[in-house]
Amino acid sequence: MVYLAEFVGTAILILLGGGVVAGVTLAKSKANNGGWIVITFGWGMAVMMAVYVVGQYSGAHINPAVTVALASIGDLPWSQVPGYIAAQMAGAFAGAVLVWLAYLPHWKETDDADTKLGVFSTAPAVRNIPANFATEVIGTFMLVFGILGINSNVNPMGDGDLTVLFGTGIAPMLVGFLVLAIGLSLGGPTGYAINPARDLGPRIAHALLPIPGKGGSDWSYAWVPVVAPIVGGVLAAQVFTAVGFGG
Amino acid sequence: MVYLAEFVGTAILILLGGGVVAGVTLAKSKANNGGWIVITFGWGMAVMMAVYVVGQYSGAHINPAVTVALASIGDLPWSQVPGYIAAQMAGAFAGAVLVWLAYLPHWKETDDADTKLGVFSTAPAVRNIPANFATEVIGTFMLVFGILGINSNVNPMGDGDLTVLFGTGIAPMLVGFLVLAIGLSLGGPTGYAINPARDLGPRIAHALLPIPGKGGSDWSYAWVPVVAPIVGGVLAAQVFTAVGFGG
Amino acid sequence: MVYLAEFVGTAILILLGGGVVAGVTLAKSKANNGGWIVITFGWGMAVMMAVYVVGQYSGAHINPAVTVALASIGDLPWSQVPGYIAAQMAGAFAGAVLVWLAYLPHWKETDDADTKLGVFSTAPAVRNIPANFATEVIGTFMLVFGILGINSNVNPMGDGDLTVLFGTGIAPMLVGFLVLAIGLSLGGPTGYAINPARDLGPRIAHALLPIPGKGGSDWSYAWVPVVAPIVGGVLAAQVFTAVGFGG
Amino acid sequence: MVYLAEFVGTAILILLGGGVVAGVTLAKSKANNGGWIVITFGWGMAVMMAVYVVGQYSGAHINPAVTVALASIGDLPWSQVPGYIAAQMAGAFAGAVLVWLAYLPHWKETDDADTKLGVFSTAPAVRNIPANFATEVIGTFMLVFGILGINSNVNPMGDGDLTVLFGTGIAPMLVGFLVLAIGLSLGGPTGYAINPARDLGPRIAHALLPIPGKGGSDWSYAWVPVVAPIVGGVLAAQVFTAVGFGG
Repeated sequence: MVYLAEFVGTAILILLGGGVVAGVTLAKSKANNGGWIVITFGWGMAVMMAVYVVGQYSGAHINPAVTVALASIGDLPWSQVPGYIAAQMAGAFAGAVLVWLAYLPHWKETDDADTKLGVFSTAPAVRNIPANFATEVIGTFMLVFGILGINSNVNPMGDGDLTVLFGTGIAPMLVGFLVLAIGLSLGGPTGYAINPARDLGPRIAHALLPIPGKGGSDWSYAWVPVVAPIVGGVLAAQVFTAVGFGG
Repeated sequence: MVYLAEFVGTAILILLGGGVVAGVTLAKSKANNGGWIVITFGWGMAVMMAVYVVGQYSGAHINPAVTVALASIGDLPWSQVPGYIAAQMAGAFAGAVLVWLAYLPHWKETDDADTKLGVFSTAPAVRNIPANFATEVIGTFMLVFGILGINSNVNPMGDGDLTVLFGTGIAPMLVGFLVLAIGLSLGGPTGYAINPARDLGPRIAHALLPIPGKGGSDWSYAWVPVVAPIVGGVLAAQVFTAVGFGG
Repeated sequence: MVYLAEFVGTAILILLGGGVVAGVTLAKSKANNGGWIVITFGWGMAVMMAVYVVGQYSGAHINPAVTVALASIGDLPWSQVPGYIAAQMAGAFAGAVLVWLAYLPHWKETDDADTKLGVFSTAPAVRNIPANFATEVIGTFMLVFGILGINSNVNPMGDGDLTVLFGTGIAPMLVGFLVLAIGLSLGGPTGYAINPARDLGPRIAHALLPIPGKGGSDWSYAWVPVVAPIVGGVLAAQVFTAVGFGG
Repeated sequence: MVYLAEFVGTAILILLGGGVVAGVTLAKSKANNGGWIVITFGWGMAVMMAVYVVGQYSGAHINPAVTVALASIGDLPWSQVPGYIAAQMAGAFAGAVLVWLAYLPHWKETDDADTKLGVFSTAPAVRNIPANFATEVIGTFMLVFGILGINSNVNPMGDGDLTVLFGTGIAPMLVGFLVLAIGLSLGGPTGYAINPARDLGPRIAHALLPIPGKGGSDWSYAWVPVVAPIVGGVLAAQVFTAVGFGG
């Protein structure tokens, strides 16, 4: 059930998250030119809904950076990490296929190939790999630090079992607002992947799906939104624990 | 009381939901050109308020797709389904009449007939019936899957009685955010009917009301936002149950 | 304490509500042209904050239409109604003076006299008194019906004492979202006064304050946002009770 | 732990708050021209997240005006005030450095020096020192009055220990919405510093950091967003107590 939950949760994340990018950027969509507030609320609500639906089964990491970060501080057995990540990647791929289907008539209406790729995976506003890497580290640090803080705060007597914590109450809502916050504030330079599965799964879908007029999948950048979020997430979990928060 | 509650809840849904479309699209409205964020928050809040007002009496389905989906998994007796749907359709019609009244001076200020119809019922951005059907199936799948997930999560020890569940706490707020999420992310291609009563009731009102300069009610499309949401909702309820969620 | 609370609550309502109109419409404001989403969130948050600050002392009606509606169904002694309304009017006046002060350098930067009046009181988009009256009746009906529904739902075992109900939990947040909903959906035609004190108190302030380049205070329209909300509010309370909701 | 928490909380506040200004105003950012709704939600969510992460350790003042105001009514020992303020200033500086790093490639893409300074500290829309001072007093009065009201309301039986109060439940969410409200409604004239650390810490960072094409740090205005918030905050705490609220 745990891996199924991660698969479903990540699929919901990408269906709603990729969907909002499609809605705002693809030609003739009713949401076209909806602006940054639509994009960021879309992703924030996507996370919120994914966590509410599957949080009680798997903790709703829906993000390999969260999974690895939790394992690095002993909140998840390392033996479960591969299964979590595989499920997240598969779910992200499935979610991207659903976005492609939901917006089926709009691909050929849209001219720009980069716009089409942007529905699936992130690209930097200014291509500067070290800086882009730093931005994704900072964004994911904020994500994981915030998740740990919210859970510690909302469940002050919790035992650190994220599965239980996320399964009740307002914590998933607050995690949704956290992702809204990160998008609003730190999304400008790189489009805030802050999640390897969110970026790589849909990028693979972009490469495989029959999308009219698509271009390349920008594989040269693909490692940044995979590696940097892992670094930022682990760093956040280590610092959070080291300073004695959540203790 | 159950059917009265569904009537009132669906009327509130359409008064506030149709109202926001009127506000953004009709000429000289102070909300004119408010954008997609206004539309989607308007519908999200419309659902949230409808569910808070009547949730404790009927579960606030306010949507035949939800009603049929719940019946299909045994959460509602089939004998109540016709009454629920009739009340929802009548409520949606009544809500549309109130929108017409609230925006009375703006109908003749507005030139475009399609804009006027758009206050009442949905139309696809790109007319492609199989694709439009698929989009509405996906959107309603997400709606019903999300409703079941939220209730299961927020009320982990609930007995599955949606009337009770929706009658308390934060669940109605989260369902409002769920509809916000679906609108932001999946509303672009078809305007997210995801509810047969939301589309058909106001379409009938459009046909009957004396609206200056109105055009046809686009009956050739009318079956899509009726049938597709039923399909998507039932599918969601079946999958949710089959994979063992909410158990 | 009750009347002091109403004074303070209504002052907060107008400081934040009038403030957001000033921010969006006065020249050189950093919020200039922020759009309908800024206006409606501003008023929604204004109500939410006013109710949280004073709700536990007076129930935070902050609106004569709510006060009279509650008295009409026996939830408030008629003897308290004049004191409530006087405090609300005085608070609204005080809040408008604070808005004038907070935006002091912007009055002479702004050319249009109607824009200046619009910071204080409402005006219809299309002047049609019977229609404008109907819009305000519908909007306030929704407000009072929603308040009664939310309280009944969130506090299912409450004794109907709105002072206590509003003093705790999420009800004030939901009332803020209700006002957001009404603004988004029903604010287009008349600017949603839905509150006699919100409109009349600041209109008097507009008439008295030394505002550079101000025009008349449009007294011919002033009775509409006073009388129509009372009618809508009482109607809502009567219908809510008559159909057996909240029982 | 208390001072560490204030350091971390204020750093989160500025990372997310300064970040959203960078996102909306720096050239080539994906959030460019996101508008006032993005700015105000960004700051509101920044406060919400900062308070959730550190509220249970220090009360999450993250603002010298709050710290001094609480001390002035006996809710904090004066002996802790210097430590609180030093931690807040250092945290604000650190947060500003992180914003600079997260948006590293965008500084040289942006021409206007005032835009760059605006990411760090506030500037009035119309320079009129007495009026700007009054605006910041009113804004911070609303902030502190609102914080005290929310805590009193949400925790009616609390003992006034803000550390405990902020550490649980929905209070931090509501404080985030309060800051959203103040930004929407009172941010137009001066950009709502309402917090000496929020303005002075990043202004020092602006002066010290190697930012291509930066101008002066506008030190002649710097005292206004330091002194006025202290005045407004203390005034609010005194009035709140004097009228008997929270008693």
